[in-house]
Formats: sequence, C-alpha cells, structure tokens
Amino acid sequence: MIFRQLYDHESSTYTYLLAERVGGEALLIDPVKSNVDQYIQLVNEMDMKLVMAVDTHIHADHVTGLGDLRKSTGCISAMGETSKAECVSLHFKEGEKLKVDNLYLDILYTPGHTDDSYSFVLADRVFTGDTLLIRGTGRTDFQNGDPADQYDSLFHKLLTLPDQTLVYPAHDYHGMTVSTIREEKQHNPRLQVPDKQAYVELMNSLQLDNPRMMDIAVPANRNCGLKSVA
Amino acid sequence: MIFRQLYDHESSTYTYLLAERVGGEALLIDPVKSNVDQYIQLVNEMDMKLVMAVDTHIHADHVTGLGDLRKSTGCISAMGETSKAECVSLHFKEGEKLKVDNLYLDILYTPGHTDDSYSFVLADRVFTGDTLLIRGTGRTDFQNGDPADQYDSLFHKLLTLPDQTLVYPAHDYHGMTVSTIREEKQHNPRLQVPDKQAYVELMNSLQLDNPRMMDIAVPANRNCGLKSVA
Repeated sequence: MIFRQLYDHESSTYTYLLAERVGGEALLIDPVKSNVDQYIQLVNEMDMKLVMAVDTHIHADHVTGLGDLRKSTGCISAMGETSKAECVSLHFKEGEKLKVDNLYLDILYTPGHTDDSYSFVLADRVFTGDTLLIRGTGRTDFQNGDPADQYDSLFHKLLTLPDQTLVYPAHDYHGMTVSTIREEKQHNPRLQVPDKQAYVELMNSLQLDNPRMMDIAVPANRNCGLKSVA
Repeated sequence: MIFRQLYDHESSTYTYLLAERVGGEALLIDPVKSNVDQYIQLVNEMDMKLVMAVDTHIHADHVTGLGDLRKSTGCISAMGETSKAECVSLHFKEGEKLKVDNLYLDILYTPGHTDDSYSFVLADRVFTGDTLLIRGTGRTDFQNGDPADQYDSLFHKLLTLPDQTLVYPAHDYHGMTVSTIREEKQHNPRLQVPDKQAYVELMNSLQLDNPRMMDIAVPANRNCGLKSVA
C-alpha cells in the first residue's frame, strides 16, 4: 500500500494520499486548495491516477482542493450525503465504501463536530476528520455541531474499533502525526467522562474564538473551493 | 512495532520514536530540547522505558534533547564516533547496531552534510538525517561538510537500499512526511547528476544563508543541549 500523510503548515491540516500500488489508482482525503499542485505532482511521480478526492466534512479552517482537483484531473469529488455541498460529483453515506483499486474504506457517519462529518476505516487505520483528534476532539459549536451526537460518534462508533487501530486525524497542532484507539481511550482528556451528559457539559463549557478563516472557508467549501459552481 | 514521527514546528525537525511494543523499550532519534516533556509523556503513556536517545549528527538548526533526556530518564545518549560531542554516554560507528528490545537498526556512516552524519536502517525504512531529504539533500558548506563525501554516502550507501525502502529524513519544509528510495532516485533533483564531479559543482554553487540558530545550536549541541557537561 502507498500511504502518504501530507501537512499543510498554514492550517495544520493533514491530507492523506492512499493507493494500493505505484502505477495504480489514488485517493486523496481532505486536500487543501493551496497544495493542489503538490498533490498532483506526487501522484504523477508515482505514475498513479487520482480517481477520487473526498472531504471528511465541510472545513471551517482552510479552503478545500476538491473543486480544483476535479477540474484538473477529472477525478470524482465526494462528500457525505448530509453535506450541503452541491458541487461534488458524488455524495456517500454510512455503510458504503470508498474504493481505490483493491483497497476498500468503510464509511462511518460520525456527526458532532459538524452534521456532515464522516470517518473512513481501512483495515488497520481510521481517518477521523475533526471528530477524534490526538488527545482532543473537534469543537461542536458551529455548523450544526452537537456534543451529544459527537459523544455517540466517539463512544458508539470510533472507540469500538480495535484498540490497535491507527488514528489519523484531519489536524494536529502539537506535532503529533498518529495515535491509536487504545491511546485515545486511555489518554485523551475529552474522553475521560462518565457519561454523555458530562461530555455535553464539557464541550459546552469551552470558550473558543471562531476559526480565523471561517467566514471565507465555509462558503468557499460549500462550493468545493471554486468561485462558481463546478 | 510502535513508530511515531513527531514534528517540531519551530525548526521543521522530525523526531522519531521507535519501539517493538507497548510496555517495552523505546528509542528516540533526533529529539528536540523544547519538546522533551512531550516525548517523555508519550513514552510514559505507552508504558515504555526510554533506553536510548540518538542524534543523526550535530544539528545546526535546533538544540538537541539528548542531554535533558539522559538527565531525566537515565537513558543512554549517543552520537557517532566522528562527532566532537564529549557529552554523550555512547559513541556508535558503522557496522554496529542500535537495539530496542528485538528491533535492530543497522548503522551507516553517511558523511557529507557534516563529518558526523549517520543513517539508521530498520528492515523496511531508513532514517537519513540531513544526508537524504525528500526531493533534496542536506547542505555541505559547514561543519566539515563535503559534497564529494555526500555523493558517496548517497550513491554508494543510501541509494543501494531496496527501492521500496521508506525514507524518513530529519527535516521537511514542504509538509512531506516520508518518501521511498525509488522516488528519490527518480525524482530528487539533486540526484539527477551524471557523476560525482557534477554533484560537487551543484552543491558548491548553492548560495545559502547560515541557519538562523547555527551560532547557538552548534555549540549547545556539542554539549548535548546542556549548559554544563553532563
């Protein structure tokens, strides 16, 4: 398997490139618009064909590369069925799979950070978007976020994966690149709560400024990062 | 195997944590002084014992965590035999191995960036320090750097590893986290030279400013990042 974690310094976003083999099909998860040329160069250098680019959710902190990638490579652009983005060529839903040659990623609907948040599970690893971060969880105070939904997504979906499952989030701000379900269960401070009500209270007590890019990024991302509908 | 790539935002340094298993021995490669608390917390959370911290070479762009780690955990601190650092508890050399439980890293002497640059080979991956970077190579214009030596280290040592070997460098400035020997052979612009003389001319033609931290980092690192000899 080809697996590349790519880091955007501006927004601390992780983008993931996945393929079964050099020369085969490729998938990008959470591409950033300003790095699209880098992704295309990397895909070309490995003689791969980008078949799909997906966002885990509509981001508020960076502009997505979905639209540019679809325009320049002809790949499928995809978000979940609960997203409001009309610009994508495919809406996926829980229970379906993303396919890249013979790699299949199971789709989980994991709302809470936003109401259009999804996670993708591939054998030994899970891409958790902003639902589960390393020693943190995504905020729940905008874009129809809901801490009770997030509790269910975390405790009834993501944390039921095998303990050794590698956790690859959409962001990290402290130089961490990966974790495991076991570590997050044991050491993520947000997950050491007795019940859903305590989690809701914890999340509702956070006093966070809006993301710097939010007013630009959210409208742009509802249009796949393009000015006009693709 | 437990493998963690950790990123220092200030100096764009990658530090690597390696272990055979949760609860076992751990090794750190190129730790950064300002992140020592983070490393220790991570090692503790995985119930591991840090047995060794090594630097690939004396860095000029950040202060090493070797001294602090040795003081606070009692681990072995190590650099190569050609380093001028008297502060370490062990000097290794080519042909020897670094041992972490049942993981064994082969040591290669790969001078050129500096005269104390080493690389570590572990089955499917190699830690290349500043000798081989992703789509680049380390500068050769200070600390007894030598482009002819670096050519030999690259072409007669690192590039003779199997094509699929994963390349983990000490730095990246463009958000890349890993590459392969095959990719670097094919796409690293510094490696597309006909012979050693051309490589020497290429490296000698670079006009680079000294690293911002150099006047602080090099003397500090000759002392393992401590003010007085440990």
